[in-house]
Amino acid sequence: MPETRLQSDLPIGLTAQGERREHDALGDIQVPADRYWGAQTQRSLVHFSIGTDRMPLELCRAYGLVKKAAALVNLADGRLPDWKAAAIIQAAEEVVDGKLDDHFPLFVWQTGSGTQTNMNVNEVIANRAIQLLGGRPGSQDPIHPNDDVNMGQSSNDTFPTAMHVATVRMVDARLLPELQALADVIETRARQWHDVVKIGRTHLQDAVPLTVGQEWSGWAHQIRDAMRTIGMAREGALELAAGGTAVGTGLNAPAGFGRAIAARLAELTGAPFVTAPNKFAALAGLDAMVRVSAAIRGAAVVMMKIANDMRWLGSGPRCGLAELHLPANEPGSSIMPGKVNPTQCEAMVMICTQIMGNDTAVAFAGSQGQFELNVMRPVVIANVLHAVRIMADGCRSFRTFSVEGTTLNAERIRRYVEGSVMLVTALTPAIGYDRASAIAHDAMEHDISLREAALRSGVVDAATFDRLVRPIEMVGDGVAGA
Amino acid sequence: MPETRLQSDLPIGLTAQGERREHDALGDIQVPADRYWGAQTQRSLVHFSIGTDRMPLELCRAYGLVKKAAALVNLADGRLPDWKAAAIIQAAEEVVDGKLDDHFPLFVWQTGSGTQTNMNVNEVIANRAIQLLGGRPGSQDPIHPNDDVNMGQSSNDTFPTAMHVATVRMVDARLLPELQALADVIETRARQWHDVVKIGRTHLQDAVPLTVGQEWSGWAHQIRDAMRTIGMAREGALELAAGGTAVGTGLNAPAGFGRAIAARLAELTGAPFVTAPNKFAALAGLDAMVRVSAAIRGAAVVMMKIANDMRWLGSGPRCGLAELHLPANEPGSSIMPGKVNPTQCEAMVMICTQIMGNDTAVAFAGSQGQFELNVMRPVVIANVLHAVRIMADGCRSFRTFSVEGTTLNAERIRRYVEGSVMLVTALTPAIGYDRASAIAHDAMEHDISLREAALRSGVVDAATFDRLVRPIEMVGDGVAGA
Amino acid sequence: MPETRLQSDLPIGLTAQGERREHDALGDIQVPADRYWGAQTQRSLVHFSIGTDRMPLELCRAYGLVKKAAALVNLADGRLPDWKAAAIIQAAEEVVDGKLDDHFPLFVWQTGSGTQTNMNVNEVIANRAIQLLGGRPGSQDPIHPNDDVNMGQSSNDTFPTAMHVATVRMVDARLLPELQALADVIETRARQWHDVVKIGRTHLQDAVPLTVGQEWSGWAHQIRDAMRTIGMAREGALELAAGGTAVGTGLNAPAGFGRAIAARLAELTGAPFVTAPNKFAALAGLDAMVRVSAAIRGAAVVMMKIANDMRWLGSGPRCGLAELHLPANEPGSSIMPGKVNPTQCEAMVMICTQIMGNDTAVAFAGSQGQFELNVMRPVVIANVLHAVRIMADGCRSFRTFSVEGTTLNAERIRRYVEGSVMLVTALTPAIGYDRASAIAHDAMEHDISLREAALRSGVVDAATFDRLVRPIEMVGDGVAGA
Amino acid sequence: MPETRLQSDLPIGLTAQGERREHDALGDIQVPADRYWGAQTQRSLVHFSIGTDRMPLELCRAYGLVKKAAALVNLADGRLPDWKAAAIIQAAEEVVDGKLDDHFPLFVWQTGSGTQTNMNVNEVIANRAIQLLGGRPGSQDPIHPNDDVNMGQSSNDTFPTAMHVATVRMVDARLLPELQALADVIETRARQWHDVVKIGRTHLQDAVPLTVGQEWSGWAHQIRDAMRTIGMAREGALELAAGGTAVGTGLNAPAGFGRAIAARLAELTGAPFVTAPNKFAALAGLDAMVRVSAAIRGAAVVMMKIANDMRWLGSGPRCGLAELHLPANEPGSSIMPGKVNPTQCEAMVMICTQIMGNDTAVAFAGSQGQFELNVMRPVVIANVLHAVRIMADGCRSFRTFSVEGTTLNAERIRRYVEGSVMLVTALTPAIGYDRASAIAHDAMEHDISLREAALRSGVVDAATFDRLVRPIEMVGDGVAGA
Repeated sequence: MPETRLQSDLPIGLTAQGERREHDALGDIQVPADRYWGAQTQRSLVHFSIGTDRMPLELCRAYGLVKKAAALVNLADGRLPDWKAAAIIQAAEEVVDGKLDDHFPLFVWQTGSGTQTNMNVNEVIANRAIQLLGGRPGSQDPIHPNDDVNMGQSSNDTFPTAMHVATVRMVDARLLPELQALADVIETRARQWHDVVKIGRTHLQDAVPLTVGQEWSGWAHQIRDAMRTIGMAREGALELAAGGTAVGTGLNAPAGFGRAIAARLAELTGAPFVTAPNKFAALAGLDAMVRVSAAIRGAAVVMMKIANDMRWLGSGPRCGLAELHLPANEPGSSIMPGKVNPTQCEAMVMICTQIMGNDTAVAFAGSQGQFELNVMRPVVIANVLHAVRIMADGCRSFRTFSVEGTTLNAERIRRYVEGSVMLVTALTPAIGYDRASAIAHDAMEHDISLREAALRSGVVDAATFDRLVRPIEMVGDGVAGA
Repeated sequence: MPETRLQSDLPIGLTAQGERREHDALGDIQVPADRYWGAQTQRSLVHFSIGTDRMPLELCRAYGLVKKAAALVNLADGRLPDWKAAAIIQAAEEVVDGKLDDHFPLFVWQTGSGTQTNMNVNEVIANRAIQLLGGRPGSQDPIHPNDDVNMGQSSNDTFPTAMHVATVRMVDARLLPELQALADVIETRARQWHDVVKIGRTHLQDAVPLTVGQEWSGWAHQIRDAMRTIGMAREGALELAAGGTAVGTGLNAPAGFGRAIAARLAELTGAPFVTAPNKFAALAGLDAMVRVSAAIRGAAVVMMKIANDMRWLGSGPRCGLAELHLPANEPGSSIMPGKVNPTQCEAMVMICTQIMGNDTAVAFAGSQGQFELNVMRPVVIANVLHAVRIMADGCRSFRTFSVEGTTLNAERIRRYVEGSVMLVTALTPAIGYDRASAIAHDAMEHDISLREAALRSGVVDAATFDRLVRPIEMVGDGVAGA
Repeated sequence: MPETRLQSDLPIGLTAQGERREHDALGDIQVPADRYWGAQTQRSLVHFSIGTDRMPLELCRAYGLVKKAAALVNLADGRLPDWKAAAIIQAAEEVVDGKLDDHFPLFVWQTGSGTQTNMNVNEVIANRAIQLLGGRPGSQDPIHPNDDVNMGQSSNDTFPTAMHVATVRMVDARLLPELQALADVIETRARQWHDVVKIGRTHLQDAVPLTVGQEWSGWAHQIRDAMRTIGMAREGALELAAGGTAVGTGLNAPAGFGRAIAARLAELTGAPFVTAPNKFAALAGLDAMVRVSAAIRGAAVVMMKIANDMRWLGSGPRCGLAELHLPANEPGSSIMPGKVNPTQCEAMVMICTQIMGNDTAVAFAGSQGQFELNVMRPVVIANVLHAVRIMADGCRSFRTFSVEGTTLNAERIRRYVEGSVMLVTALTPAIGYDRASAIAHDAMEHDISLREAALRSGVVDAATFDRLVRPIEMVGDGVAGA
Repeated sequence: MPETRLQSDLPIGLTAQGERREHDALGDIQVPADRYWGAQTQRSLVHFSIGTDRMPLELCRAYGLVKKAAALVNLADGRLPDWKAAAIIQAAEEVVDGKLDDHFPLFVWQTGSGTQTNMNVNEVIANRAIQLLGGRPGSQDPIHPNDDVNMGQSSNDTFPTAMHVATVRMVDARLLPELQALADVIETRARQWHDVVKIGRTHLQDAVPLTVGQEWSGWAHQIRDAMRTIGMAREGALELAAGGTAVGTGLNAPAGFGRAIAARLAELTGAPFVTAPNKFAALAGLDAMVRVSAAIRGAAVVMMKIANDMRWLGSGPRCGLAELHLPANEPGSSIMPGKVNPTQCEAMVMICTQIMGNDTAVAFAGSQGQFELNVMRPVVIANVLHAVRIMADGCRSFRTFSVEGTTLNAERIRRYVEGSVMLVTALTPAIGYDRASAIAHDAMEHDISLREAALRSGVVDAATFDRLVRPIEMVGDGVAGA
């Protein structure tokens, strides 16, 4: 009959000072006594002290969910006794809640499978569970980081699982809501300015008119489209590798483990996770992550256009286009007093540029799998979560401090429309392209109004001109265009 | 009452020699008398003689479809008389069928809206239609390239429309079928070799076994997934800009023109084209193309992994892994007699690398729209169609000349499994991770078999070892893994 | 005593019809009778019919130089008899001169070492030399493509050699001269417009003034810098792999072969080629090519900025910045009559975008070497030469059809300077940043002139203002700035 | 006569609690009372709370050098009184020494000119100097962040200056030494293993032999070359924008300010900084940074090849190439006991991948300048310094924990050489390519030794074979190859 241990409700924290001994397959090693991590985490800290990029905490917390789900499955299957499972689950929940964040010190630049972070999670949960059960941290007794916490698992299947869980959670909780909030504000403005006729610009050159609302509706539509693409890419991330263990065959995991753990994760998160239909692909590829990265890049492509448009339309105040007044949030220049710069647009443009770089790294990494495993996982999750975070925060910042406070320079917008020569396009159906072209050239060459040039051409009379060339009639009748 | 002209059935071809005069809004210019193109095409040839990259013919042919659809709509609406429409439609069909390919000489590096290619198509169709109607090429009478062929259209809405049509057609006709044929062959092999146990490799290091069929099933699954992603990206390309004309408002196009032209294109191609729900986004963005490019890159990421695996598994013959025999299609070396190289894999890897470069250009271009137009269209369509073409052809070549002729080196595969130390993993559930680890280290350190090390450890007896460590039992029971 | 054969002066061309038999280590194969290529070329055509990208002819011609140099060295060393060498050299010269261009049909997507193109060159030279010596094409007698033409060589050392030779020649003959011509024209304009004061713009917002000449001098300086970087990168390409043969050890090449062939190539081309100091690096890496690609990308980064600036400064005519008049080379729009677009700028921007994509592919390829060879050579040379070509042609086109015809809109430039509020910066040293800032804000808020705001602030009197705020005094005294 | 204030030697630190009032041109704002920063820093924290990427501290410290140099110049020119200069200089030195690191909280995603970080530095130095002079933090008296600390400067010229200074310092102090240390160790090994003959591999296929030392010499050479390229790129970063002020004209900076500040920075750092020859290019471009980034990418391209080679050569232990024993630093697998993985190689490969992504972002950013300024500076410096840091640390880690502990598996290496069929290449000069090829094919097809196949071919006798086919004679005579 199996041993049973009583679980205490000791608060989080190790009060010991100095160091304690931990061991793993390579022998003993000293670790800081106030940290929950064990030997393998400590070895990684020694061998991989590279830069300042830590494994994203969102990944570590998602790993807590994976460990909890695994413990629940092992408990239900009778592979873990109640008391062990309860302690592991409590510790895992503390990981999920971020209460053990300080115990995940590892760098991104480590083993390419993320094994060291898996062991970091296993060790922290094991030692915390040991503490709860009245044991001695480092003793691996009664909770063993591999045999108990990692039961039925491998880094090779759980790290990609944690990647997907972290990605889906961040996309759902941060990225999509911020894109939506931005699109909502832009659409509100599009409706508000639906009737403000403005000059269109193609090739940076004056073109035929549209309304401010139409221009903004295009921006909103592009964001909505990018969201849809992110949503589709996210579906791939709902497929989980767990159950495949070391190479995809599921060795040492019981039958049905993959399906069960995905079901538990779906329950725990509310996201409809399922087990990956082909575990070999799930371990050897990073395809779902490459797709998510590409989809976020799609949003970056869109946001770059919008942020650029906004700063150009706000350029001036006297020597630029000056159709928009962007809010002034800070003094713009350390040398030019009174200058106001489109800084939110600039931050957004830099974010988009960064995301293109991140995506290049992700795609490259995705192509470098070998046989049963792709060992570029940490660099991929770091870049994807980074992209999610800066795009989400960037959208919030851009919306709050730029879009919401933007107003129209109605006078300037009106003057542009009136002065434009490209209104001649409205004459084309009546007089043909060639004659319309001659009129436009005449107006530009002699710096006269289009009306004047049209009348002196003899091709149209004043009544016809005034009937045909009415900007408000030239913008069609829908906010979404023709 | 409108003029009517009789249409002749003159064959394609202009027999005149020397040059003829054509004109446009900038005046007269000489063009080769045996070419159908007009003044604007000729100007572009003069001003944009850059490199050797021509506008893809697939784009020009798709443009023929757009012109035909527009003529059909204009005819149905009574804007074009029967006899004009008939001539334009016949000429457009000749463009679609590639019969006028020699008359599309323009370079990729031209105006960023593709206006010059739109005019090239307009001019060729106009002159060919003029010829059919007994007129004089260059006279713009009775068919005018702008007023008749371009009726209700702008480059700004028809060039993106032609881009989408060309992309969908190439994806449907070339890319997806070739990916599918490759996946099919790989799946056939996966089934055929379902029971051949082989050593797994993770981190390039010996790992636990799987079957050859499972390994190949992972490849096939990755391809299928990439195809699904391409299919989803293709949906965006089904939305057409036509109807938006110059800036998205649809100025100078009749109400409903966009919907009507999309419906015609759907009929003509069998692909379910629809009018873009927001024309401002459709003109100012290139988002659907960026997504298609990313999806093709996804396939490149996958194919790079597969081609790399295949050449590594075929490495040798005596100093490599040598699990596979790849077919020898050519002498491998100009200096080392008898050498056979995995050249199809190398070509595929280079294709994948190229596609990553193409995609970088496309995404960058997609971000550079301004106001009502993105003027990076030629570089985008050139890179996307290039990617489609080399991936499709590359898959065919790789399948035909490498995958289909690949055989197993069964003897080598068997020897690896037998010699591997990582079979120790099968002991872990019974004896725990730490003791299993000690056994493995002992075997490696003293270069003895795993069985020998296990028995001398005293932890397991021979019967237990032989019961637990059976490679064929370690591979699970499904071709798709756990 | 060796056989001697007399050489005829048969013109280039094979008049036979149908096919002839060629053979190689894999056996016999039929080739078109009017082509000089042999069995291995033909096999490659069968197995690698992928896309439309042919091996760049510049590479094939440079390969001719390599073969000529090798023959000269082998002749001098007595390894090739006079009559053989003479025939090989003549045939190689015909390759160099482009007279045999039609006989290099291979695709980029082939073996990654370029072996098939090396054999294509060997076969064409052998068959042409055989023809000159009165032999039968396909007989490999008296000239053998491997034993004679490829004597002392391997694809692994000659293909990278030809890559470097082709790159240096194209950079010297095409890229640097075109960049220089462009920089020259811009500098001429910079001098010409040295005194024209204009408003500066930072963050797209009005800033303090500079002169048009100064702005253009910055462009020219950036181009000159990019040229210097290309020049430094080119140095790496002067180091040649030839002599390393199959793996870098020089097996089957006589001692000193590498040095001798580099010396011959230096003589033949006038470029100071030397033998690579480490042949293992030269074969296994593509580092010099990666650097050249990066340097060309550097020029693209610069040209993108310049072309963007030019089209923005030329935006308008009435609703943009309109400081420059760019030449109108073609009608700008198929729907808006009279529109003139900055098409040369757009072509340049697309070229720069393409080059960024090319460079991504090159760097990626450069990283994928394995052991003694990097088998990504064709994709690298194709992308680098492509970048050279489109950048060179693009600069010529941009210079000829845009920069040279650009003129100033002096009136508009003057008005901007007068209206700008940022001239307040000139007051800062006298009144401090905070008070200057208040004046500027007052001017902007109440839409009054800076002078008016300054005077009503009571901080400066009119005399002080007029003394300090003089735009022409604010631009420093050098065309290169402070 | 100017006021003079006595300077105290108050230690660093503000002991006040709560908040204090700071103000700037936009009005008042509360800041934490224990922080030295002022109003503009605080505004930036409010408006740009995006992600977790902080402005690199190396940049902030380098900015301290710039401020010190400026104060020295202003002091020497009599523009700053002694007592002001002394306080500013002391505060600047504290910034340089990292003693004020906690007072630079700003994010990368801010204004694209880095103005907010410039003001952060100005504010911290001003408040610290005020404290030293007995004033009240936030009073801007007697030291004003703009008028005194920023005297003669703009963000537009000092931020790029600080970027260059930070980059040169990090490249000199971290990157080049670590690359050199790595190259040194590899060269030591190359000498040590100069005579160990091993099989060469090209196309992953067995090729002719070389020595282990030669293979390693190629790696070392590639690193040395990459270092040279970094050295050349670094030269561009020695040119400083300071003196150009807002738009390059040097407005509000005294004549010669740029030269003087560069000279001071050269003194202070020991690096030969000079003033940029063209200030317009220096402000509007980021070309020197793009080149440095490309040069670092060049090192990444090289390191990726080396790390890949090492892990492949160390693959096994029983089912891979197994020529090298890489050190085992940690347990390799959470599920497979005893597994040892090439984790340092994997970390390096991920670092190289990241750097390619960083470089994509940098090049893209470099191309997006507009008129007198490129406002992508923060994203560029963040990516470049990040690349420097992870490459430097990665090289140290890779060297210490992988290269230095790597040993040869001499037995395996010897067996490969003996078994290889490609030694047949040594027969080619004697018997010709075709006959050698037939012998090789015979050996491979019938799985016999090359010697056996050669003898039974009748083409060579045993004495000839043994004389010609001697691996040690086939490797040439230099560690650098032919």
